Amino acid sequence: MLDNVSTLKTLVLGRKPGHSLEAPFYTSPEVFEADMEAIFYRHWIYVGIEPDVPEPGDVATVNVGKASVLIIRDDDNEIRAFHNVCRHRGARLVGEEKATVGNIVCPYHSWTYGLDGQLVHAPHMGAGFDATCKGLKPVHLRSLEGLLFICLADNPPEDFDEVAARMGPYIAPHKVRETKIAYQSDLIEMGNWKLVIENNRECYHCEANHPELTVPLFAYGFGFAPEEMDQLDLENAQRYDALRQASHAEWEKLGLPSREIEELDSRVTGFRTERLPLDGDGESHTMDTRAACKVPLGAFSSAKLGGLSFWTQPNSWHHFLGDHIVTFSALPLDEGRTLVRTKWLVNKDAVEGVDYDIDRLIEVWTATNAQDSALVGMCQQGASNPAYEPGPYSPNTEMLVEKFVRWYISRMTEYVGQ
Amino acid sequence: MLDNVSTLKTLVLGRKPGHSLEAPFYTSPEVFEADMEAIFYRHWIYVGIEPDVPEPGDVATVNVGKASVLIIRDDDNEIRAFHNVCRHRGARLVGEEKATVGNIVCPYHSWTYGLDGQLVHAPHMGAGFDATCKGLKPVHLRSLEGLLFICLADNPPEDFDEVAARMGPYIAPHKVRETKIAYQSDLIEMGNWKLVIENNRECYHCEANHPELTVPLFAYGFGFAPEEMDQLDLENAQRYDALRQASHAEWEKLGLPSREIEELDSRVTGFRTERLPLDGDGESHTMDTRAACKVPLGAFSSAKLGGLSFWTQPNSWHHFLGDHIVTFSALPLDEGRTLVRTKWLVNKDAVEGVDYDIDRLIEVWTATNAQDSALVGMCQQGASNPAYEPGPYSPNTEMLVEKFVRWYISRMTEYVGQ
Amino acid sequence: MLDNVSTLKTLVLGRKPGHSLEAPFYTSPEVFEADMEAIFYRHWIYVGIEPDVPEPGDVATVNVGKASVLIIRDDDNEIRAFHNVCRHRGARLVGEEKATVGNIVCPYHSWTYGLDGQLVHAPHMGAGFDATCKGLKPVHLRSLEGLLFICLADNPPEDFDEVAARMGPYIAPHKVRETKIAYQSDLIEMGNWKLVIENNRECYHCEANHPELTVPLFAYGFGFAPEEMDQLDLENAQRYDALRQASHAEWEKLGLPSREIEELDSRVTGFRTERLPLDGDGESHTMDTRAACKVPLGAFSSAKLGGLSFWTQPNSWHHFLGDHIVTFSALPLDEGRTLVRTKWLVNKDAVEGVDYDIDRLIEVWTATNAQDSALVGMCQQGASNPAYEPGPYSPNTEMLVEKFVRWYISRMTEYVGQ
Repeated sequence: MLDNVSTLKTLVLGRKPGHSLEAPFYTSPEVFEADMEAIFYRHWIYVGIEPDVPEPGDVATVNVGKASVLIIRDDDNEIRAFHNVCRHRGARLVGEEKATVGNIVCPYHSWTYGLDGQLVHAPHMGAGFDATCKGLKPVHLRSLEGLLFICLADNPPEDFDEVAARMGPYIAPHKVRETKIAYQSDLIEMGNWKLVIENNRECYHCEANHPELTVPLFAYGFGFAPEEMDQLDLENAQRYDALRQASHAEWEKLGLPSREIEELDSRVTGFRTERLPLDGDGESHTMDTRAACKVPLGAFSSAKLGGLSFWTQPNSWHHFLGDHIVTFSALPLDEGRTLVRTKWLVNKDAVEGVDYDIDRLIEVWTATNAQDSALVGMCQQGASNPAYEPGPYSPNTEMLVEKFVRWYISRMTEYVGQ
Repeated sequence: MLDNVSTLKTLVLGRKPGHSLEAPFYTSPEVFEADMEAIFYRHWIYVGIEPDVPEPGDVATVNVGKASVLIIRDDDNEIRAFHNVCRHRGARLVGEEKATVGNIVCPYHSWTYGLDGQLVHAPHMGAGFDATCKGLKPVHLRSLEGLLFICLADNPPEDFDEVAARMGPYIAPHKVRETKIAYQSDLIEMGNWKLVIENNRECYHCEANHPELTVPLFAYGFGFAPEEMDQLDLENAQRYDALRQASHAEWEKLGLPSREIEELDSRVTGFRTERLPLDGDGESHTMDTRAACKVPLGAFSSAKLGGLSFWTQPNSWHHFLGDHIVTFSALPLDEGRTLVRTKWLVNKDAVEGVDYDIDRLIEVWTATNAQDSALVGMCQQGASNPAYEPGPYSPNTEMLVEKFVRWYISRMTEYVGQ
Repeated sequence: MLDNVSTLKTLVLGRKPGHSLEAPFYTSPEVFEADMEAIFYRHWIYVGIEPDVPEPGDVATVNVGKASVLIIRDDDNEIRAFHNVCRHRGARLVGEEKATVGNIVCPYHSWTYGLDGQLVHAPHMGAGFDATCKGLKPVHLRSLEGLLFICLADNPPEDFDEVAARMGPYIAPHKVRETKIAYQSDLIEMGNWKLVIENNRECYHCEANHPELTVPLFAYGFGFAPEEMDQLDLENAQRYDALRQASHAEWEKLGLPSREIEELDSRVTGFRTERLPLDGDGESHTMDTRAACKVPLGAFSSAKLGGLSFWTQPNSWHHFLGDHIVTFSALPLDEGRTLVRTKWLVNKDAVEGVDYDIDRLIEVWTATNAQDSALVGMCQQGASNPAYEPGPYSPNTEMLVEKFVRWYISRMTEYVGQ
């Protein structure tokens, strides 16, 4: 157990570069509380998509640590976020993950809030009661071409607009706002949220663990140590690199920005993107590498658009294909459990059973999520072992893990005070 | 998390009058421990009724926080309370909620205690062993006309006798000692014990949540803001008030004290009582407002006796009808869970299936308990939200909640030292 | 809750001799952490037997507190122990209790370790990576005639060899290495590990609780207060003592050391042994007191060898019969839960269904374990009661409990610093 901030500070400032973190970062309830305060309550957190609330009056709830937040589409089609807590006796206002309402009515004493958060009715409070200062507490919310990010801090990081300006052109053609949720899975992984993200930031483990995902993904994109490869390997890797560059050029001619932007540890709202070619028929994350949905996203005429990946610190990753989108958020529950929420999006005009089959659509990532969940659990068990000590990241295949950890440590360094 | 007593002190002394408590009062394990020390281990706690142990040798166990207590009727029909822990190796002596015994025999090594708590046999302890100082540790116990209260402190609050003297005449006619338990329910509510009590101390939430309870109860008894009512409302309220006063006069003529005594926050053993008229046929807490049991309690000849309510700080409420009694204790389990134990009592001569039907007897309060449990759970979730802040109580409908909180804060103030 | 080491120190130094421990020793998470650090991570802990890994490549995992340890038989038939944690990202290497492998391959990124712990393959780590310092971390391991003990400290207690030298001749004739596991039970008892051991160290509770175990065991071996016995009792006790001494002499003529060695609280690696006659036919711990397995252990020609008991501090007890062995380890899970692992061993040449029947073999100790588990649970409940206080041990029947507690306190005294 940790005693005080100075111990957290010691841990943060003593991090060994190029290595996994010390055990308490994964196992200590105190570090978890600090993570919530320093990271999840202060940064832009990915929580969902505009199609979560497609119509006016639609409400989605999302929990970030102990916070519960309402995402509401109001009657003017504006999406807003509020704390999910009544200003009277504090009852949770909406218990379900999704609801459709006229107003937000507290189930306890019927205090009633408009979709703009204003308190419009509070019975029996008497003449001396001023309702104007008892509206729902707002939460900062931004939409990045349909991807919803919230920030629970009073003063959110200011660089979100710049991130949005640079990422927007990559995402916009996939038209998230014109999709619907074909399927959602909520998986509780038995590991600290940082183990979930670290696992997501490398494909070093893919060959041994992900037989489905490695069908559409090219193994040469996972990174490798050149000195360990034979002549054939090196030639294949060069061929893959040439394909990647040729694909970038081709896609950009179609108006699809595709080249890497890598800002994972160089800003407060860290992110990275790149569009990569896929193996086989090159169309989608499916077991036959062909599109899972007959109706393409947006106005795409080609199906062979590879996969645009997008990662944000601290808690999201996304794959934009030509026919569907898979979008993931990691939502910490406690030091040893993390909710991984996955949504598969298709064109809102696509018809299930006609244009797409759910099983085929979700096959690759359902299997991959289950495999990742098992791996994260093994790491949590390992980090709890007194014999655990930080081990070295591969400089060839775990660079993005290192960037995540470096970003995390820099944010925590600011929190504990240099 | 709280660090030390000074933080608890800060919280206690900083309470904002007229508002719900700060979040740690509902969510902190440390405050919960302090609640146990300061409130539940020092005050008179309602734990059951004489009919829990109707015959000599009958034993009931009740858990108050981490304490487990034996309620025993001895061979002279005296009811006594002892700590449920063997003086040898500390084994819990009785594991079941109810038992009938000749002596209390420890299941571990057969140390044997009489019903008066004396150690009468301790095999193999040898000649040097003095059994006289190894009797069961006694617990203070008082019966208020058949309602059993215990106090775990060495020196219990001295005002219990005065409370009993004032309350006795209200309760005595219902003859608790001549009842039997027709039904008992043990419900674990997912909220702090104070949320359970706060919920019990107002009917502001009844209209929106308790369709069954509002059949026998008059809505005008729940409190209201006169300035929000129209002419018809005000006339109805006046009519209700007149009915209440007329009823008081009529019942007192029958020898049934009925007028309000309100001492919720004005003494250590806080309490309140009043007999109120019921709606419809005015007989009982049933869905048709008529008696659920054909055999009346005590020597009642009229069935239309309204409902005598009795509340005690910190943990009980009771409704005495003409035909049955519903009696509730709230027993804290941890900072987020509370056992609500409800007993329905009828005349011990009544025959199930002949004189009363269990389903009909328990219908209103079984539904109401379930509804209250859901509300308490919502408040616990809300209090855990970092965005929660204390909200204002209605001066018209939540006065008794305020009195409970004021009582609690005054007791805690004494505990932390002014 | 405990605040700091000085409070632990106060508790340790303030122990009342001849009495059970203060409540926090059984209920406090902080004392539990100290127990792990001071006792289970520093002493020789019994974890299993050589027949757990009968063949080269066999692996057994065992958890001691938060540590997970691999017991491996290598290709040279040497048994080794390593921490079950990958040196790369810390994943738990082997999740199952038993496995058979060629190498230890981490499921995460395929880092591969030889059965000697050396890292033999770590793909993609590049030319700068030095594998020689990334082998599995070894754990000290000793075999006492086939009983496996590990020590997680860098510098284990030095007296193990002496214990082995004195105990070896007692155990060797039963030839543990030539047995197989006929049955294993893993029982989670709801009590602190010290309550499990205390319960094991006396038979004061046997008469009231163990109707099966008291079939083969002589009650006069449980201890008694002479002043409480009548003439017949005393004569029976003398007869038992004479039988015990005659049996010792007879068995020692057969080459079976049998007389008591009692070093429970007189050394770091505390232990005790004695071979005792059994009641009835005197052969085994069965309901008819006859052998449960037709094939004797070792080279025994007589079946009537009584039972050799062997106890070690802090966590094991064993009964060596002529036809089988029952061997127990107590493995703490948290302050209120302990895994009791029991293995029944028979001659490896015995055939199930022909030479022995599992139900008959395990009948006595399966029942006894269940009874003990219930008793331990009652004591844990009792120790959690605020009214609990340490009670006196019987000087006639609980001497070995006192020796365990004295040993524990002396080890903790060294830990907290005198």
